Amino acid sequence: MLTLFRYNWQVREEWFDLCGQLPEDELLRERMGGVGSMLRTLFHIVDVEYSWIRTLQGKPDFDGKFEDYQTLTQVRNLSVTFHGEVDSFLKVWSDEMENNILTVPMRDGQLHKFTHGEVLRHVVAHEIHHIGQLSVWARELGLQPVSANVIGRGLFRSE
Amino acid sequence: MLTLFRYNWQVREEWFDLCGQLPEDELLRERMGGVGSMLRTLFHIVDVEYSWIRTLQGKPDFDGKFEDYQTLTQVRNLSVTFHGEVDSFLKVWSDEMENNILTVPMRDGQLHKFTHGEVLRHVVAHEIHHIGQLSVWARELGLQPVSANVIGRGLFRSE
Repeated sequence: MLTLFRYNWQVREEWFDLCGQLPEDELLRERMGGVGSMLRTLFHIVDVEYSWIRTLQGKPDFDGKFEDYQTLTQVRNLSVTFHGEVDSFLKVWSDEMENNILTVPMRDGQLHKFTHGEVLRHVVAHEIHHIGQLSVWARELGLQPVSANVIGRGLFRSE
Repeated sequence: MLTLFRYNWQVREEWFDLCGQLPEDELLRERMGGVGSMLRTLFHIVDVEYSWIRTLQGKPDFDGKFEDYQTLTQVRNLSVTFHGEVDSFLKVWSDEMENNILTVPMRDGQLHKFTHGEVLRHVVAHEIHHIGQLSVWARELGLQPVSANVIGRGLFRSE
């Protein structure tokens, strides 16, 4: 599973590069589906990953607002800023932590229980799902999307 | 990682249900991005998962053509047909198989080497990515997409 985090980080960097070819107004343009714009999608990915990792550590989550990160450079810098802590947490992750229980209040007002392994898989799938949305919007703008392939990225020992 | 397969299967069933609300011509309509239509996306997900699992077993992959599966029922039946073999393979999967090497000819004409673990993660991410694309197209059609959440689906021992 940790390899899928590394996959996400690699793909995310490639999307930051690709989005650098677009004017800021295209990145901010409201679109149908997902969280509504390309830049907000990238912000949301960064926010959700970091906030869950903070929560798993019993620390306050990130409460920054997208309105304060309205350029690609700001969102990319935020991703870099958070990355160290996320990476450090995952480096000490071990299989014994898999079934640790996290109890959190959710949007429905109820306390929910999740295993730590469940939360990590949620974070992984969350980013892949939103990147799929970006790929449709990129095509609409005439861009070739970043490859979503996991194979062939040098992430495994075969290469 | 196997939990993410179960996640994908659950989400896929919900998408089959949701797509059942759409007329067939909307499912077949060519769209921007991905593999081009909602039904072709579902077919592609089923095809790719099964073909890789077959390849990992040293068996011939699926060579069916989308042109022969032009209704939601046909694609859903194909998914059900393949599921048994995919599930059986994953039930006997063990961590020791993680670094087994698969050598396959790829589209570039070269032989590529992948670990079995790499291929399984590729299959998992492949489906999540394409489901993200479906979610945009569903919104364009005024539908509420299937939830992409991993948490709260009863897939883990906390619940």
